Amino acid sequence: MRLLLQEIRHNPLLWLLIFVPIVLVVEKLQPHAYTLHFVLSILAIVPLAVLLSHATESVAAKTGDSVGGLLNSTLGNLTELVIAITALQAGQYTLVKASIAGAITTNSLFMLGACFLLGGLRYHVQEFNRVAARFQAGLLFLATVALLIPSTIGARLTAENARFNRELSLALSVLLLLAYALGLWFSLKTHVEMFAGAAEEEEAAWPIGLALGTLAGVTVFVALVSEVFVGSVQEAAKDFGMTPAFVGFIVVALVGAAAEMAAAFSAARKNRLDLSVSIALGSSAQIALFVAPVLVLLSSFVGPAPMDLNFWPGAVAMVFFATLTATLVTNSGRSVWFAGVLVLTVYLMFAAALYLLPPSSAG
Amino acid sequence: MRLLLQEIRHNPLLWLLIFVPIVLVVEKLQPHAYTLHFVLSILAIVPLAVLLSHATESVAAKTGDSVGGLLNSTLGNLTELVIAITALQAGQYTLVKASIAGAITTNSLFMLGACFLLGGLRYHVQEFNRVAARFQAGLLFLATVALLIPSTIGARLTAENARFNRELSLALSVLLLLAYALGLWFSLKTHVEMFAGAAEEEEAAWPIGLALGTLAGVTVFVALVSEVFVGSVQEAAKDFGMTPAFVGFIVVALVGAAAEMAAAFSAARKNRLDLSVSIALGSSAQIALFVAPVLVLLSSFVGPAPMDLNFWPGAVAMVFFATLTATLVTNSGRSVWFAGVLVLTVYLMFAAALYLLPPSSAG
Amino acid sequence: MRLLLQEIRHNPLLWLLIFVPIVLVVEKLQPHAYTLHFVLSILAIVPLAVLLSHATESVAAKTGDSVGGLLNSTLGNLTELVIAITALQAGQYTLVKASIAGAITTNSLFMLGACFLLGGLRYHVQEFNRVAARFQAGLLFLATVALLIPSTIGARLTAENARFNRELSLALSVLLLLAYALGLWFSLKTHVEMFAGAAEEEEAAWPIGLALGTLAGVTVFVALVSEVFVGSVQEAAKDFGMTPAFVGFIVVALVGAAAEMAAAFSAARKNRLDLSVSIALGSSAQIALFVAPVLVLLSSFVGPAPMDLNFWPGAVAMVFFATLTATLVTNSGRSVWFAGVLVLTVYLMFAAALYLLPPSSAG
Repeated sequence: MRLLLQEIRHNPLLWLLIFVPIVLVVEKLQPHAYTLHFVLSILAIVPLAVLLSHATESVAAKTGDSVGGLLNSTLGNLTELVIAITALQAGQYTLVKASIAGAITTNSLFMLGACFLLGGLRYHVQEFNRVAARFQAGLLFLATVALLIPSTIGARLTAENARFNRELSLALSVLLLLAYALGLWFSLKTHVEMFAGAAEEEEAAWPIGLALGTLAGVTVFVALVSEVFVGSVQEAAKDFGMTPAFVGFIVVALVGAAAEMAAAFSAARKNRLDLSVSIALGSSAQIALFVAPVLVLLSSFVGPAPMDLNFWPGAVAMVFFATLTATLVTNSGRSVWFAGVLVLTVYLMFAAALYLLPPSSAG
Repeated sequence: MRLLLQEIRHNPLLWLLIFVPIVLVVEKLQPHAYTLHFVLSILAIVPLAVLLSHATESVAAKTGDSVGGLLNSTLGNLTELVIAITALQAGQYTLVKASIAGAITTNSLFMLGACFLLGGLRYHVQEFNRVAARFQAGLLFLATVALLIPSTIGARLTAENARFNRELSLALSVLLLLAYALGLWFSLKTHVEMFAGAAEEEEAAWPIGLALGTLAGVTVFVALVSEVFVGSVQEAAKDFGMTPAFVGFIVVALVGAAAEMAAAFSAARKNRLDLSVSIALGSSAQIALFVAPVLVLLSSFVGPAPMDLNFWPGAVAMVFFATLTATLVTNSGRSVWFAGVLVLTVYLMFAAALYLLPPSSAG
Repeated sequence: MRLLLQEIRHNPLLWLLIFVPIVLVVEKLQPHAYTLHFVLSILAIVPLAVLLSHATESVAAKTGDSVGGLLNSTLGNLTELVIAITALQAGQYTLVKASIAGAITTNSLFMLGACFLLGGLRYHVQEFNRVAARFQAGLLFLATVALLIPSTIGARLTAENARFNRELSLALSVLLLLAYALGLWFSLKTHVEMFAGAAEEEEAAWPIGLALGTLAGVTVFVALVSEVFVGSVQEAAKDFGMTPAFVGFIVVALVGAAAEMAAAFSAARKNRLDLSVSIALGSSAQIALFVAPVLVLLSSFVGPAPMDLNFWPGAVAMVFFATLTATLVTNSGRSVWFAGVLVLTVYLMFAAALYLLPPSSAG
């Protein structure tokens, strides 16, 4: 416990934890102050995500390289998963899908581009392990194809096709999870030497008891705050003049990935671009090949109706171009500041389109 | 003749030749047992394809490198061509188009992916000639653009546009054949040194008389069996609960490419990945740039009406993603087992979608 | 002035300048001879474009590397810009958009492919600076995404969406111009050493007075002739049996880029492929990231109504595949004659489709 308090003292981001009790209290006292709920819940989720991330890594550090890698690769996006499950329970499928597509796009464009830019402003040319980047870009490519199948091979929505979409989504989800599992085996076991350089920095790991306790406790708090967040997001978006698409794709994605971003940016500035690229693309791949299929499978038990992989064409297009951009830009294994500008501009163009979109068009 | 019998004794796949007379007899005796026709004709086509392949190579071996390469590059997919012409005569345009798109997809995803996986399970990292792979991926890319043009630049089907589609298909077919011819000149004449390593293994070549005789005789049998196959495929698909799209894309393609697959898989296990990649991508390119345009041109003379290059959007999407996958995965000139998993997963996702597709949606 | 006359004597292309007065006189005397106007104005624009190009380079040579590079990069496609502004004023938005998409496609397919072919017929294998090629392909990719956003993320045209399209087009245009400006800073200032080898050949530069005078004077003549050209293009197309799409995409683009093509082809034949690739892709990128956004911004002041970036889907598809082709084919930094055949075939397939297109389908 003392370790936890010490950590909090040293990391100003964790001071935001004060907003966790605040948001829960405000939600009870002023149940209709949606905009306030929205802002407070964002402020509360960010430090929780940082804690969750550190706790996962500590557990991983104690359990050996392979099991640890596995844990990092499945719980690394626990925040996104909890937010999405909460939205699933509330029947907000559009928000779930937008946040999945948004997280993939944000991690592989904004996070990657900002790393290239931040690193490139300090170093003339940076190098990174392109084999690892190709592996993760390959996984992302797979997920992109899966998202494109329902809308290209699949057919328009009629009664018969609703069943087709459900069955197809289940089949694709199982294939994605299988490919993800084999990918972990490949990168953590059979060809682990290819991924040298992408190892996370050694932070002081917590004792296993504290780590597990934090993992369990913080997950509960993330779930509680997510409920406030999901319940307020639509009303708040209206007040801020933001389209629901913009909130789902951009705001939720940035909030959910705050912890990974802090780590990736810091690594880029230390010329450890291997690690930055690995966090950015690995996080994207994890959401696409683990979080999304798990949500599809879970949706049969949680939430009012099963969810399919039939995404809004605009979302599919964004994921496709994000993957293509990430693939092309990481292909050479070298980076300069302008590569960051290119990738960030693609992201800003998407963000502009979503911000301007007439409210009824997306989803 | 003794050589032929000796070959048959040593290659268990050729024992299936017994099904050639069986299927022809059964078709006469039980003209409506479509499911039986379907199964028997598949069993009969596989060994005929193997014979045809060996005969073509023997003729090629006797005629010198360049003419031989030319023969291999035009008669290498004779089985697919004969099946398609038979279907064309029967007016089954949907089956023809599905089998073209299916053959391209199957060869550049299933055959390539299985080679990577089979080779990678035995060797940690395999290398192959990436210049040759790029050349064939480039040809495939060209064909993909040709297939995409009618549906993107072209317009919806009205009376005026039927003529447009026909003229455009003829023009595109001529351009594809021209590019294919120049590609042969490039790879067999002007830049032959770039393709080192992709040379086929020296099998005992047959004497030219036997080879030519086999070529002629077996082609007749393939045509006869194809007729039974084409005549039974739709009824049989119903009985098996398979969609026509699945049969056209997956079953016909796997049957037609059985001979090439045997050769490609065997090369991969002997660490001759150059040859495997060359067979898989070369076969795809040959179907896309030689078989398909020849069918379009032939369709003015054979069959009830001319065929165009206006493919079902789902088929175009599959060919596009198969080409993109093959391009990205062969780009580095190195392969590991997980590359095979990635490519095979893309194929399995397509197969799943086709299998689940409501019967009326494709075509 | 003597220098100018000397230049004209040595460059047979400039003898076409005689058509400048001819076309202006004919237009007065026979105001309805549209086909004649069309042919004469093309013959007159080509030499004007050559002069403009030489004048720009002379000014650039006198102003130091960075300012000169900047001038070349903004005035290098002045001919295209003046033609497009003239068409904008006449309210011919379809022609403007067709000529933008056509110029991008023509430069990155026809010009690049012809350079590869011409160079490859003389040299067995040619090498070029692939870092520079990647930079320009990256810029082109950015513009392609911008063109794709309105039709994928954007929505169908209703009253509400007209406003959305206008706002989105303005936002995208500003982002493209910003990325272009940062790209110039990158290639002319911070990472200039990466672009070695792409420097233009030293032609005898004109004195600054002559250069500036030519620049101003010739621009006026281009504007005058463009007016005749734009006014005659639709009627003439009918007479020639060409679709308006073919004229906009192919004819206008070839005319506008005549000067750059002459330079790029000559460099390819001298084995200076660095320069050829730089002219071809640089010119494409300049039109996509400078000319097009400037036209969108200008259209609020010039012309009857603002222009958006919502292009005809066929045009977007062509630009996308042109960019993808250019990216894949320049990726290795080496070229052979068959690479030229591949790229030219893609262009010819597009040209065939546009030529055959029923007149009402495009735009």
